[in-house]
Amino acid sequence: MFDLSAYRRIVESATYHKFIGLALAEADAEKGVAVLHLPYRPDLAIFAEAGAWHGGVIAALIDAAGSVACGLAVGRPMPTVNFRVDFLKSPVRVDLIATGRLVRAGRSVAVADVEVTDAAGALYAVGRGTFSVGSATRAVAGGAATAG
Amino acid sequence: MFDLSAYRRIVESATYHKFIGLALAEADAEKGVAVLHLPYRPDLAIFAEAGAWHGGVIAALIDAAGSVACGLAVGRPMPTVNFRVDFLKSPVRVDLIATGRLVRAGRSVAVADVEVTDAAGALYAVGRGTFSVGSATRAVAGGAATAG
Amino acid sequence: MFDLSAYRRIVESATYHKFIGLALAEADAEKGVAVLHLPYRPDLAIFAEAGAWHGGVIAALIDAAGSVACGLAVGRPMPTVNFRVDFLKSPVRVDLIATGRLVRAGRSVAVADVEVTDAAGALYAVGRGTFSVGSATRAVAGGAATAG
Amino acid sequence: MFDLSAYRRIVESATYHKFIGLALAEADAEKGVAVLHLPYRPDLAIFAEAGAWHGGVIAALIDAAGSVACGLAVGRPMPTVNFRVDFLKSPVRVDLIATGRLVRAGRSVAVADVEVTDAAGALYAVGRGTFSVGSATRAVAGGAATAG
Repeated sequence: MFDLSAYRRIVESATYHKFIGLALAEADAEKGVAVLHLPYRPDLAIFAEAGAWHGGVIAALIDAAGSVACGLAVGRPMPTVNFRVDFLKSPVRVDLIATGRLVRAGRSVAVADVEVTDAAGALYAVGRGTFSVGSATRAVAGGAATAG
Repeated sequence: MFDLSAYRRIVESATYHKFIGLALAEADAEKGVAVLHLPYRPDLAIFAEAGAWHGGVIAALIDAAGSVACGLAVGRPMPTVNFRVDFLKSPVRVDLIATGRLVRAGRSVAVADVEVTDAAGALYAVGRGTFSVGSATRAVAGGAATAG
Repeated sequence: MFDLSAYRRIVESATYHKFIGLALAEADAEKGVAVLHLPYRPDLAIFAEAGAWHGGVIAALIDAAGSVACGLAVGRPMPTVNFRVDFLKSPVRVDLIATGRLVRAGRSVAVADVEVTDAAGALYAVGRGTFSVGSATRAVAGGAATAG
Repeated sequence: MFDLSAYRRIVESATYHKFIGLALAEADAEKGVAVLHLPYRPDLAIFAEAGAWHGGVIAALIDAAGSVACGLAVGRPMPTVNFRVDFLKSPVRVDLIATGRLVRAGRSVAVADVEVTDAAGALYAVGRGTFSVGSATRAVAGGAATAG
Protein backbone atom coordinates (compact mmCIF):
# COMPACT_ATOMS: atom_id res chain seq x y z
CA MET A 1 0.00 0.00 0.00
CA PHE A 2 1.15 3.51 -0.79
CA ASP A 3 2.71 5.26 2.22
CA LEU A 4 2.33 9.01 1.80
CA SER A 5 4.47 9.88 4.82
CA ALA A 6 7.36 7.77 3.60
CA TYR A 7 7.11 9.22 0.10
CA ARG A 8 6.89 12.74 1.52
CA ARG A 9 10.08 12.14 3.50
CA ILE A 10 11.93 11.03 0.38
CA VAL A 11 10.70 13.95 -1.72
CA GLU A 12 11.27 16.57 0.96
CA SER A 13 14.69 15.25 1.99
CA ALA A 14 16.20 16.10 -1.39
CA THR A 15 18.74 18.86 -0.83
CA TYR A 16 17.57 21.21 -3.57
CA HIS A 17 13.95 20.67 -2.55
CA LYS A 18 14.84 21.79 0.98
CA PHE A 19 16.83 24.70 -0.47
CA ILE A 20 13.76 26.11 -2.24
CA GLY A 21 11.15 24.85 0.25
CA LEU A 22 9.31 22.27 -1.84
CA ALA A 23 6.69 20.17 -0.05
CA LEU A 24 4.64 17.15 -1.12
CA ALA A 25 1.12 18.16 -0.11
CA GLU A 26 -1.01 15.33 -1.50
CA ALA A 27 -0.64 12.15 -3.48
CA ASP A 28 -3.03 9.59 -4.88
CA ALA A 29 -1.15 6.55 -6.08
CA GLU A 30 -4.29 5.01 -7.58
CA LYS A 31 -4.94 8.02 -9.79
CA GLY A 32 -1.28 8.82 -10.35
CA VAL A 33 -1.64 12.35 -9.03
CA ALA A 34 0.81 14.25 -6.82
CA VAL A 35 0.49 17.81 -5.58
CA LEU A 36 3.55 19.83 -4.63
CA HIS A 37 3.57 23.17 -2.83
CA LEU A 38 6.21 25.82 -3.26
CA PRO A 39 5.63 28.90 -1.07
CA TYR A 40 6.77 32.23 -2.47
CA ARG A 41 10.19 33.46 -1.39
CA PRO A 42 11.88 36.60 -2.71
CA ASP A 43 15.06 34.55 -3.38
CA LEU A 44 13.23 32.70 -6.13
CA ALA A 45 12.04 35.79 -7.98
CA ILE A 46 13.61 37.35 -11.07
CA PHE A 47 13.89 40.55 -9.06
CA ALA A 48 12.84 40.38 -5.43
CA GLU A 49 11.46 43.93 -5.60
CA ALA A 50 9.08 43.06 -8.43
CA GLY A 51 8.23 39.63 -7.05
CA ALA A 52 7.75 37.68 -10.29
CA TRP A 53 8.82 34.04 -9.95
CA HIS A 54 11.86 33.10 -12.02
CA GLY A 55 10.81 30.78 -14.82
CA GLY A 56 13.64 28.41 -14.00
CA VAL A 57 12.15 27.73 -10.59
CA ILE A 58 8.78 27.05 -12.17
CA ALA A 59 10.53 24.64 -14.54
CA ALA A 60 12.19 22.90 -11.58
CA LEU A 61 8.80 22.62 -9.89
CA ILE A 62 7.34 21.02 -13.03
CA ASP A 63 10.29 18.65 -13.29
CA ALA A 64 9.81 17.57 -9.68
CA ALA A 65 6.02 17.24 -9.93
CA GLY A 66 6.24 15.03 -13.01
CA SER A 67 8.99 12.94 -11.47
CA VAL A 68 7.06 12.53 -8.22
CA ALA A 69 3.76 11.69 -9.97
CA CYS A 70 5.41 9.03 -12.16
CA GLY A 71 7.12 7.52 -9.14
CA LEU A 72 4.01 7.00 -7.03
CA ALA A 73 3.73 3.37 -8.07
CA VAL A 74 7.28 2.54 -7.07
CA GLY A 75 7.63 4.89 -4.09
CA ARG A 76 10.55 6.78 -5.62
CA PRO A 77 10.51 9.78 -7.96
CA MET A 78 11.44 8.75 -11.48
CA PRO A 79 14.46 10.33 -13.21
CA THR A 80 13.45 12.86 -15.83
CA VAL A 81 14.34 12.07 -19.44
CA ASN A 82 13.03 15.32 -20.91
CA PHE A 83 10.26 17.83 -20.43
CA ARG A 84 8.63 20.85 -21.99
CA VAL A 85 7.34 23.83 -20.09
CA ASP A 86 4.99 26.48 -21.44
CA PHE A 87 4.76 29.70 -19.47
CA LEU A 88 1.28 31.20 -19.66
CA LYS A 89 1.26 33.99 -17.12
CA SER A 90 3.86 35.32 -14.73
CA PRO A 91 3.05 34.51 -11.08
CA VAL A 92 3.86 37.36 -8.72
CA ARG A 93 4.36 36.91 -4.96
CA VAL A 94 2.00 33.96 -4.76
CA ASP A 95 2.48 30.45 -3.41
CA LEU A 96 2.65 27.89 -6.21
CA ILE A 97 0.86 24.57 -6.46
CA ALA A 98 2.04 22.00 -8.98
CA THR A 99 -0.26 19.12 -9.79
CA GLY A 100 1.45 16.26 -11.58
CA ARG A 101 -0.62 13.59 -13.34
CA LEU A 102 0.65 10.33 -14.80
CA VAL A 103 -0.65 10.12 -18.37
CA ARG A 104 0.79 6.72 -19.25
CA ALA A 105 3.37 4.35 -17.86
CA GLY A 106 5.13 2.16 -20.39
CA ARG A 107 7.85 -0.43 -20.04
CA SER A 108 10.77 1.99 -20.22
CA VAL A 109 9.29 5.47 -19.92
CA ALA A 110 6.28 7.19 -18.40
CA VAL A 111 4.60 10.43 -19.49
CA ALA A 112 3.24 13.01 -17.06
CA ASP A 113 1.43 16.34 -17.27
CA VAL A 114 1.85 19.13 -14.76
CA GLU A 115 -0.18 22.26 -14.08
CA VAL A 116 1.18 25.12 -12.01
CA THR A 117 -1.48 27.24 -10.33
CA ASP A 118 -2.03 29.27 -7.20
CA ALA A 119 -4.54 28.45 -4.45
CA ALA A 120 -7.24 30.35 -6.35
CA GLY A 121 -6.75 28.16 -9.40
CA ALA A 122 -5.08 30.68 -11.72
CA LEU A 123 -3.01 28.74 -14.28
CA TYR A 124 0.56 30.00 -14.69
CA ALA A 125 2.40 27.26 -16.55
CA VAL A 126 1.95 23.76 -17.96
CA GLY A 127 4.54 21.04 -18.32
CA ARG A 128 4.79 17.66 -19.99
CA GLY A 129 7.62 15.23 -19.66
CA THR A 130 9.00 11.77 -20.10
CA PHE A 131 10.40 9.93 -17.10
CA SER A 132 12.56 6.85 -16.91
CA VAL A 133 10.80 3.77 -15.59
CA GLY A 134 13.84 1.58 -16.08
CA SER A 135 16.09 3.69 -13.96
CA ALA A 136 13.59 4.36 -11.19
CA THR A 137 15.50 1.89 -9.10
CA ARG A 138 18.74 3.76 -9.71
CA ALA A 139 17.58 7.08 -8.34
CA VAL A 140 15.88 8.37 -5.30
CA ALA A 141 14.45 11.83 -5.30
CA GLY A 142 13.99 14.78 -7.56
CA GLY A 143 14.38 15.49 -11.19
CA ALA A 144 17.45 13.40 -11.78
CA ALA A 145 18.73 13.29 -15.20
CA THR A 146 19.67 10.44 -17.43
CA ALA A 147 18.56 9.55 -20.90
CA GLY A 148 19.41 6.08 -19.89
CA MET B 1 27.64 48.55 -29.76
CA PHE B 2 27.13 45.63 -27.43
CA ASP B 3 28.28 46.37 -23.86
CA LEU B 4 29.19 43.09 -22.15
CA SER B 5 29.72 44.67 -18.74
CA ALA B 6 26.32 46.29 -18.77
CA TYR B 7 24.63 43.10 -19.91
CA ARG B 8 26.50 41.10 -17.29
CA ARG B 9 25.28 43.47 -14.59
CA ILE B 10 21.67 42.98 -15.70
CA VAL B 11 21.95 39.20 -15.88
CA GLU B 12 23.85 38.81 -12.63
CA SER B 13 21.68 41.24 -10.69
CA ALA B 14 18.62 39.01 -11.01
CA THR B 15 17.77 37.76 -7.54
CA TYR B 16 17.45 34.07 -8.37
CA HIS B 17 20.64 34.21 -10.42
CA LYS B 18 22.47 35.56 -7.38
CA PHE B 19 20.80 32.92 -5.21
CA ILE B 20 22.29 30.08 -7.27
CA GLY B 21 25.47 31.87 -8.33
CA LEU B 22 24.89 32.27 -12.06
CA ALA B 23 27.46 34.33 -13.99
CA LEU B 24 27.58 35.60 -17.57
CA ALA B 25 31.05 34.55 -18.71
CA GLU B 26 31.07 35.47 -22.39
CA ALA B 27 28.81 36.93 -25.00
CA ASP B 28 29.06 37.54 -28.71
CA ALA B 29 26.20 39.69 -29.90
CA GLU B 30 27.20 39.27 -33.55
CA LYS B 31 26.99 35.49 -33.39
CA GLY B 32 24.13 35.43 -30.93
CA VAL B 33 26.07 33.33 -28.44
CA ALA B 34 26.10 33.69 -24.65
CA VAL B 35 27.97 31.53 -22.15
CA LEU B 36 26.79 31.22 -18.56
CA HIS B 37 28.72 29.63 -15.70
CA LEU B 38 27.13 27.92 -12.72
CA PRO B 39 29.66 26.62 -10.20
CA TYR B 40 28.74 23.48 -8.29
CA ARG B 41 27.21 23.95 -4.87
CA PRO B 42 25.86 21.11 -2.71
CA ASP B 43 22.61 23.10 -2.21
CA LEU B 44 21.78 22.56 -5.86
CA ALA B 45 22.21 18.79 -5.81
CA ILE B 46 19.47 16.19 -5.53
CA PHE B 47 21.29 14.89 -2.48
CA ALA B 48 24.33 16.84 -1.35
CA GLU B 49 26.09 13.61 -0.28
CA ALA B 50 25.84 12.11 -3.76
CA GLY B 51 26.53 15.39 -5.54
CA ALA B 52 24.36 14.96 -8.65
CA TRP B 53 22.93 18.26 -9.86
CA HIS B 54 19.14 18.54 -9.57
CA GLY B 55 17.60 18.52 -13.03
CA GLY B 56 15.47 21.51 -12.15
CA VAL B 57 18.57 23.66 -11.70
CA ILE B 58 19.88 22.47 -15.06
CA ALA B 59 16.53 23.42 -16.56
CA ALA B 60 16.76 26.88 -14.97
CA LEU B 61 20.25 27.26 -16.39
CA ILE B 62 18.97 26.38 -19.87
CA ASP B 63 16.07 28.79 -19.51
CA ALA B 64 18.46 31.58 -18.53
CA ALA B 65 21.01 30.81 -21.25
CA GLY B 66 18.37 30.83 -23.99
CA SER B 67 16.82 34.01 -22.65
CA VAL B 68 20.21 35.73 -22.39
CA ALA B 69 21.33 34.61 -25.88
CA CYS B 70 18.10 35.82 -27.50
CA GLY B 71 18.39 39.15 -25.71
CA LEU B 72 21.89 40.02 -26.88
CA ALA B 73 20.58 42.20 -29.67
CA VAL B 74 18.38 44.26 -27.38
CA GLY B 75 20.57 44.22 -24.27
CA ARG B 76 17.90 42.56 -22.14
CA PRO B 77 17.17 38.86 -21.66
CA MET B 78 14.00 37.87 -23.50
CA PRO B 79 11.07 36.37 -21.58
CA THR B 80 10.74 32.63 -22.14
CA VAL B 81 7.63 31.41 -23.91
CA ASN B 82 8.44 27.69 -23.66
CA PHE B 83 11.37 25.33 -23.72
CA ARG B 84 12.32 21.68 -23.84
CA VAL B 85 15.18 20.14 -21.93
CA ASP B 86 16.69 16.72 -22.63
CA PHE B 87 18.86 15.27 -19.90
CA LEU B 88 21.66 13.15 -21.34
CA LYS B 89 23.96 12.40 -18.43
CA SER B 90 23.85 13.35 -14.77
CA PRO B 91 26.57 15.88 -13.84
CA VAL B 92 28.16 15.17 -10.46
CA ARG B 93 30.05 17.81 -8.44
CA VAL B 94 31.21 19.67 -11.52
CA ASP B 95 30.88 23.32 -12.54
CA LEU B 96 28.38 23.77 -15.34
CA ILE B 97 28.75 25.80 -18.51
CA ALA B 98 25.67 26.67 -20.55
CA THR B 99 26.17 27.91 -24.09
CA GLY B 100 23.10 29.53 -25.58
CA ARG B 101 22.88 30.14 -29.33
CA LEU B 102 20.24 32.16 -31.15
CA VAL B 103 18.88 29.98 -33.96
CA ARG B 104 16.46 32.48 -35.46
CA ALA B 105 14.88 35.76 -34.46
CA GLY B 106 11.47 36.45 -35.93
CA ARG B 107 9.06 39.31 -35.51
CA SER B 108 7.38 38.01 -32.38
CA VAL B 109 9.48 35.10 -31.17
CA ALA B 110 13.07 33.90 -31.27
CA VAL B 111 14.39 30.33 -31.05
CA ALA B 112 17.55 29.37 -29.16
CA ASP B 113 19.53 26.21 -28.52
CA VAL B 114 21.48 25.55 -25.33
CA GLU B 115 24.14 23.02 -24.47
CA VAL B 116 25.15 22.27 -20.88
CA THR B 117 28.66 20.94 -20.47
CA ASP B 118 31.54 21.01 -18.03
CA ALA B 119 34.93 22.61 -18.67
CA ALA B 120 36.18 19.40 -20.27
CA GLY B 121 33.36 19.47 -22.79
CA ALA B 122 31.25 16.58 -21.51
CA LEU B 123 27.67 17.14 -22.65
CA TYR B 124 25.06 16.77 -19.89
CA ALA B 125 21.89 18.30 -21.27
CA VAL B 126 20.48 20.12 -24.28
CA GLY B 127 17.70 22.65 -24.39
CA ARG B 128 15.66 24.42 -27.03
CA GLY B 129 13.20 27.20 -26.48
CA THR B 130 11.08 29.98 -27.81
CA PHE B 131 11.50 33.48 -26.42
CA SER B 132 9.31 36.52 -26.72
CA VAL B 133 10.70 39.26 -28.91
CA GLY B 134 7.62 41.40 -28.51
CA SER B 135 7.81 41.52 -24.77
CA ALA B 136 11.57 41.98 -24.52
CA THR B 137 10.89 45.58 -23.71
CA ARG B 138 8.51 44.58 -20.93
CA ALA B 139 10.98 42.48 -18.96
CA VAL B 140 14.45 42.74 -17.66
CA ALA B 141 16.33 39.66 -16.61
CA GLY B 142 15.91 35.94 -16.38
CA GLY B 143 13.46 33.40 -17.56
CA ALA B 144 10.36 35.49 -17.16
CA ALA B 145 7.22 33.94 -18.21
CA THR B 146 4.48 35.15 -20.47
CA ALA B 147 2.92 33.58 -23.50
CA GLY B 148 2.18 37.05 -24.49
CA MET C 1 -20.74 34.79 -34.71
CA PHE C 2 -18.69 31.72 -35.45
CA ASP C 3 -19.59 30.07 -38.76
CA LEU C 4 -18.72 26.37 -38.58
CA SER C 5 -19.48 25.70 -42.24
CA ALA C 6 -17.21 28.49 -43.41
CA TYR C 7 -14.42 27.37 -41.11
CA ARG C 8 -14.87 23.76 -42.22
CA ARG C 9 -14.53 24.83 -45.85
CA ILE C 10 -11.26 26.62 -45.09
CA VAL C 11 -9.80 23.71 -43.11
CA GLU C 12 -10.93 21.02 -45.53
CA SER C 13 -9.86 22.91 -48.64
CA ALA C 14 -6.18 22.76 -47.67
CA THR C 15 -4.45 20.56 -50.22
CA TYR C 16 -2.61 18.30 -47.79
CA HIS C 17 -5.74 17.94 -45.68
CA LYS C 18 -7.59 16.69 -48.75
CA PHE C 19 -4.66 14.43 -49.58
CA ILE C 20 -4.95 12.59 -46.28
CA GLY C 21 -8.71 13.01 -45.80
CA LEU C 22 -8.81 15.33 -42.79
CA ALA C 23 -12.24 16.65 -41.77
CA LEU C 24 -13.37 19.25 -39.24
CA ALA C 25 -16.10 17.42 -37.34
CA GLU C 26 -16.97 19.86 -34.56
CA ALA C 27 -15.94 23.23 -33.24
CA ASP C 28 -16.91 25.34 -30.27
CA ALA C 29 -15.47 28.81 -30.60
CA GLU C 30 -16.63 29.78 -27.10
CA LYS C 31 -14.72 26.94 -25.47
CA GLY C 32 -11.84 27.01 -27.94
CA VAL C 33 -12.32 23.36 -28.88
CA ALA C 34 -12.04 21.83 -32.36
CA VAL C 35 -12.44 18.16 -33.29
CA LEU C 36 -10.81 16.76 -36.41
CA HIS C 37 -11.45 13.34 -37.93
CA LEU C 38 -8.92 11.36 -39.89
CA PRO C 39 -10.25 8.04 -41.18
CA TYR C 40 -7.79 5.17 -41.47
CA ARG C 41 -6.22 4.60 -44.86
CA PRO C 42 -3.50 2.04 -45.57
CA ASP C 43 -1.46 4.75 -47.33
CA LEU C 44 -0.92 6.45 -43.99
CA ALA C 45 0.39 3.38 -42.20
CA ILE C 46 4.02 2.50 -41.55
CA PHE C 47 3.37 -0.74 -43.37
CA ALA C 48 -0.05 -1.17 -44.90
CA GLU C 49 -0.03 -4.90 -44.10
CA ALA C 50 0.44 -4.29 -40.38
CA GLY C 51 -1.85 -1.26 -40.31
CA ALA C 52 -0.13 0.85 -37.65
CA TRP C 53 -0.50 4.58 -38.32
CA HIS C 54 2.76 6.36 -39.17
CA GLY C 55 3.71 8.67 -36.32
CA GLY C 56 4.36 11.49 -38.76
CA VAL C 57 0.70 11.51 -39.80
CA ILE C 58 -0.34 11.59 -36.16
CA ALA C 59 2.01 14.55 -35.70
CA ALA C 60 0.45 16.30 -38.70
CA LEU C 61 -2.99 15.69 -37.22
CA ILE C 62 -1.87 17.24 -33.92
CA ASP C 63 -0.35 20.20 -35.74
CA ALA C 64 -3.60 20.79 -37.61
CA ALA C 65 -5.85 20.33 -34.56
CA GLY C 66 -3.86 22.84 -32.51
CA SER C 67 -3.75 25.29 -35.38
CA VAL C 68 -7.48 24.96 -35.99
CA ALA C 69 -8.40 25.25 -32.28
CA CYS C 70 -6.29 28.39 -31.84
CA GLY C 71 -7.82 29.94 -34.94
CA LEU C 72 -11.46 29.57 -33.91
CA ALA C 73 -11.62 33.14 -32.66
CA VAL C 74 -10.33 34.60 -35.91
CA GLY C 75 -11.86 32.10 -38.34
CA ARG C 76 -8.49 31.05 -39.74
CA PRO C 77 -6.13 28.34 -38.49
CA MET C 78 -3.10 29.90 -36.81
CA PRO C 79 0.42 29.18 -38.11
CA THR C 80 2.31 26.76 -35.90
CA VAL C 81 5.41 28.08 -34.14
CA ASN C 82 6.38 24.78 -32.51
CA PHE C 83 4.84 21.69 -30.99
CA ARG C 84 5.65 18.57 -29.06
CA VAL C 85 4.05 15.20 -29.62
CA ASP C 86 4.17 12.27 -27.22
CA PHE C 87 3.22 8.90 -28.65
CA LEU C 88 1.53 6.72 -26.06
CA LYS C 89 0.19 3.75 -27.96
CA SER C 90 0.29 2.78 -31.60
CA PRO C 91 -3.13 3.02 -33.29
CA VAL C 92 -3.81 0.18 -35.71
CA ARG C 93 -6.43 0.36 -38.48
CA VAL C 94 -8.67 2.70 -36.55
CA ASP C 95 -10.13 6.09 -37.43
CA LEU C 96 -8.46 8.89 -35.50
CA ILE C 97 -10.10 11.76 -33.65
CA ALA C 98 -8.01 14.76 -32.65
CA THR C 99 -9.45 17.16 -30.11
CA GLY C 100 -7.63 20.47 -29.95
CA ARG C 101 -8.17 22.81 -26.98
CA LEU C 102 -6.97 26.38 -26.66
CA VAL C 103 -5.12 26.67 -23.34
CA ARG C 104 -4.29 30.37 -23.51
CA ALA C 105 -4.25 33.08 -26.14
CA GLY C 106 -1.73 35.85 -25.60
CA ARG C 107 -0.85 38.91 -27.62
CA SER C 108 1.62 37.20 -29.94
CA VAL C 109 1.22 33.47 -29.37
CA ALA C 110 -1.42 30.99 -28.26
CA VAL C 111 -0.96 27.59 -26.61
CA ALA C 112 -3.09 24.55 -27.41
CA ASP C 113 -3.35 20.95 -26.24
CA VAL C 114 -4.39 18.08 -28.47
CA GLU C 115 -5.50 14.53 -27.69
CA VAL C 116 -5.60 11.84 -30.34
CA THR C 117 -8.07 9.06 -29.64
CA ASP C 118 -10.36 6.66 -31.46
CA ALA C 119 -14.15 6.65 -31.27
CA ALA C 120 -14.00 4.41 -28.19
CA GLY C 121 -11.86 6.95 -26.38
CA ALA C 122 -8.53 5.08 -26.37
CA LEU C 123 -5.75 7.66 -26.07
CA TYR C 124 -2.93 7.24 -28.62
CA ALA C 125 -0.96 10.48 -28.52
CA VAL C 126 -0.92 13.91 -26.93
CA GLY C 127 0.38 17.14 -28.37
CA ARG C 128 1.07 20.65 -27.14
CA GLY C 129 2.05 23.59 -29.25
CA THR C 130 2.52 27.29 -29.67
CA PHE C 131 0.73 29.08 -32.49
CA SER C 132 1.27 32.51 -33.92
CA VAL C 133 -1.47 35.01 -33.15
CA GLY C 134 0.34 37.81 -34.89
CA SER C 135 0.57 36.04 -38.17
CA ALA C 136 -2.92 34.60 -38.13
CA THR C 137 -3.85 37.23 -40.64
CA ARG C 138 -0.97 36.22 -42.89
CA ALA C 139 -1.96 32.59 -43.27
CA VAL C 140 -5.00 30.65 -44.14
CA ALA C 141 -5.16 26.97 -43.37
CA GLY C 142 -3.15 24.20 -41.84
CA GLY C 143 0.02 23.89 -39.92
CA ALA C 144 1.93 26.66 -41.61
CA ALA C 145 5.26 27.41 -40.34
CA THR C 146 6.87 30.62 -39.32
CA ALA C 147 8.60 31.59 -36.14
CA GLY C 148 7.62 35.01 -37.07
CA MET D 1 29.24 -3.54 -41.06
CA PHE D 2 26.54 -1.05 -41.91
CA ASP D 3 24.72 -1.87 -45.17
CA LEU D 4 23.30 1.34 -46.64
CA SER D 5 21.40 -0.41 -49.41
CA ALA D 6 19.66 -2.72 -47.00
CA TYR D 7 18.77 0.13 -44.66
CA ARG D 8 17.54 2.22 -47.59
CA ARG D 9 15.25 -0.61 -48.64
CA ILE D 10 13.75 -0.80 -45.16
CA VAL D 11 13.24 2.96 -44.87
CA GLU D 12 11.89 3.42 -48.38
CA SER D 13 9.60 0.40 -48.24
CA ALA D 14 7.46 1.95 -45.50
CA THR D 15 4.06 2.63 -47.00
CA TYR D 16 3.69 6.23 -45.86
CA HIS D 17 7.25 6.98 -46.95
CA LYS D 18 6.38 5.75 -50.44
CA PHE D 19 3.14 7.74 -50.30
CA ILE D 20 5.00 11.03 -49.81
CA GLY D 21 8.18 10.08 -51.71
CA LEU D 22 10.71 9.95 -48.89
CA ALA D 23 14.20 8.68 -49.77
CA LEU D 24 17.25 7.83 -47.67
CA ALA D 25 20.04 9.70 -49.44
CA GLU D 26 23.01 9.19 -47.15
CA ALA D 27 23.89 7.55 -43.89
CA ASP D 28 26.98 7.37 -41.73
CA ALA D 29 26.55 4.79 -39.02
CA GLU D 30 29.84 5.77 -37.36
CA LYS D 31 28.78 9.38 -36.93
CA GLY D 32 25.12 8.60 -36.36
CA VAL D 33 24.01 10.79 -39.24
CA ALA D 34 21.25 10.07 -41.77
CA VAL D 35 20.07 12.32 -44.59
CA LEU D 36 16.56 12.02 -46.00
CA HIS D 37 15.26 13.68 -49.15
CA LEU D 38 11.68 14.70 -49.71
CA PRO D 39 11.05 16.26 -53.13
CA TYR D 40 8.38 18.93 -53.36
CA ARG D 41 4.95 17.81 -54.46
CA PRO D 42 1.87 20.04 -54.58
CA ASP D 43 -0.10 17.38 -52.65
CA LEU D 44 2.02 18.10 -49.60
CA ALA D 45 1.45 21.85 -49.59
CA ILE D 46 -1.03 23.77 -47.46
CA PHE D 47 -2.47 25.12 -50.68
CA ALA D 48 -1.02 23.78 -53.91
CA GLU D 49 -1.42 27.16 -55.59
CA ALA D 50 0.74 28.92 -53.00
CA GLY D 51 3.20 26.05 -52.69
CA ALA D 52 4.11 26.32 -49.00
CA TRP D 53 4.84 22.93 -47.46
CA HIS D 54 2.33 21.81 -44.82
CA GLY D 55 3.98 21.85 -41.40
CA GLY D 56 2.63 18.40 -40.67
CA VAL D 57 4.67 16.93 -43.50
CA ILE D 58 7.77 18.69 -42.20
CA ALA D 59 7.02 17.21 -38.78
CA ALA D 60 6.70 13.75 -40.34
CA LEU D 61 10.03 14.26 -42.09
CA ILE D 62 11.66 15.19 -38.77
CA ASP D 63 10.10 12.20 -37.06
CA ALA D 64 11.44 9.89 -39.77
CA ALA D 65 14.92 11.46 -39.85
CA GLY D 66 15.34 11.13 -36.08
CA SER D 67 14.05 7.59 -36.11
CA VAL D 68 16.33 6.61 -39.00
CA ALA D 69 19.41 8.29 -37.46
CA CYS D 70 18.89 6.58 -34.11
CA GLY D 71 18.42 3.23 -35.80
CA LEU D 72 21.67 3.25 -37.77
CA ALA D 73 23.43 1.13 -35.19
CA VAL D 74 20.77 -1.57 -35.22
CA GLY D 75 19.78 -1.36 -38.88
CA ARG D 76 16.15 -0.55 -38.09
CA PRO D 77 14.53 2.85 -37.49
CA MET D 78 13.75 3.32 -33.80
CA PRO D 79 10.17 3.97 -32.69
CA THR D 80 9.59 7.59 -31.71
CA VAL D 81 8.73 8.29 -28.09
CA ASN D 82 8.26 12.04 -28.50
CA PHE D 83 9.61 14.97 -30.44
CA ARG D 84 9.52 18.72 -30.71
CA VAL D 85 9.52 20.66 -33.95
CA ASP D 86 10.25 24.37 -34.30
CA PHE D 87 9.25 25.98 -37.57
CA LEU D 88 11.60 28.77 -38.55
CA LYS D 89 10.68 29.70 -42.07
CA SER D 90 8.08 28.39 -44.47
CA PRO D 91 9.59 26.41 -47.37
CA VAL D 92 7.88 27.10 -50.69
CA ARG D 93 8.09 24.73 -53.70
CA VAL D 94 11.54 23.48 -52.76
CA ASP D 95 12.87 19.96 -52.22
CA LEU D 96 13.53 19.27 -48.55
CA ILE D 97 16.59 17.68 -46.97
CA ALA D 98 16.40 16.41 -43.42
CA THR D 99 19.64 15.64 -41.62
CA GLY D 100 19.19 13.56 -38.49
CA ARG D 101 22.01 13.30 -35.94
CA LEU D 102 22.19 10.95 -32.98
CA VAL D 103 22.99 13.06 -29.91
CA ARG D 104 23.15 10.28 -27.37
CA ALA D 105 22.12 6.65 -27.15
CA GLY D 106 21.26 5.38 -23.69
CA ARG D 107 20.04 2.05 -22.44
CA SER D 108 16.36 2.65 -23.07
CA VAL D 109 16.14 5.81 -25.14
CA ALA D 110 18.19 7.76 -27.67
CA VAL D 111 18.07 11.48 -28.45
CA ALA D 112 18.41 12.89 -31.97
CA ASP D 113 18.48 16.33 -33.57
CA VAL D 114 17.16 17.06 -37.04
CA GLU D 115 17.62 20.02 -39.35
CA VAL D 116 15.38 20.60 -42.36
CA THR D 117 16.97 22.60 -45.14
CA ASP D 118 16.94 22.90 -48.90
CA ALA D 119 19.86 22.13 -51.21
CA ALA D 120 21.18 25.67 -50.79
CA GLY D 121 21.35 25.25 -47.02
CA ALA D 122 18.44 27.49 -45.99
CA LEU D 123 17.18 26.30 -42.61
CA TYR D 124 13.40 25.84 -42.39
CA ALA D 125 12.79 23.81 -39.26
CA VAL D 126 14.59 22.04 -36.43
CA GLY D 127 13.48 18.99 -34.50
CA ARG D 128 14.57 17.10 -31.43
CA GLY D 129 13.23 13.81 -30.22
CA THR D 130 13.51 10.78 -28.02
CA PHE D 131 13.47 7.34 -29.60
CA SER D 132 12.98 3.95 -28.04
CA VAL D 133 16.08 1.79 -27.94
CA GLY D 134 14.32 -0.97 -26.07
CA SER D 135 11.64 -1.43 -28.65
CA ALA D 136 13.90 -1.10 -31.69
CA THR D 137 13.62 -4.82 -32.08
CA ARG D 138 9.84 -4.63 -32.00
CA ALA D 139 9.48 -2.25 -34.92
CA VAL D 140 10.74 -1.94 -38.41
CA ALA D 141 10.45 1.36 -40.21
CA GLY D 142 9.21 4.82 -39.69
CA GLY D 143 8.06 6.95 -36.87
CA ALA D 144 6.24 4.27 -34.97
CA ALA D 145 4.73 5.23 -31.79
CA THR D 146 4.98 3.70 -28.37
CA ALA D 147 5.95 5.24 -25.07
CA GLY D 148 6.90 1.93 -23.94
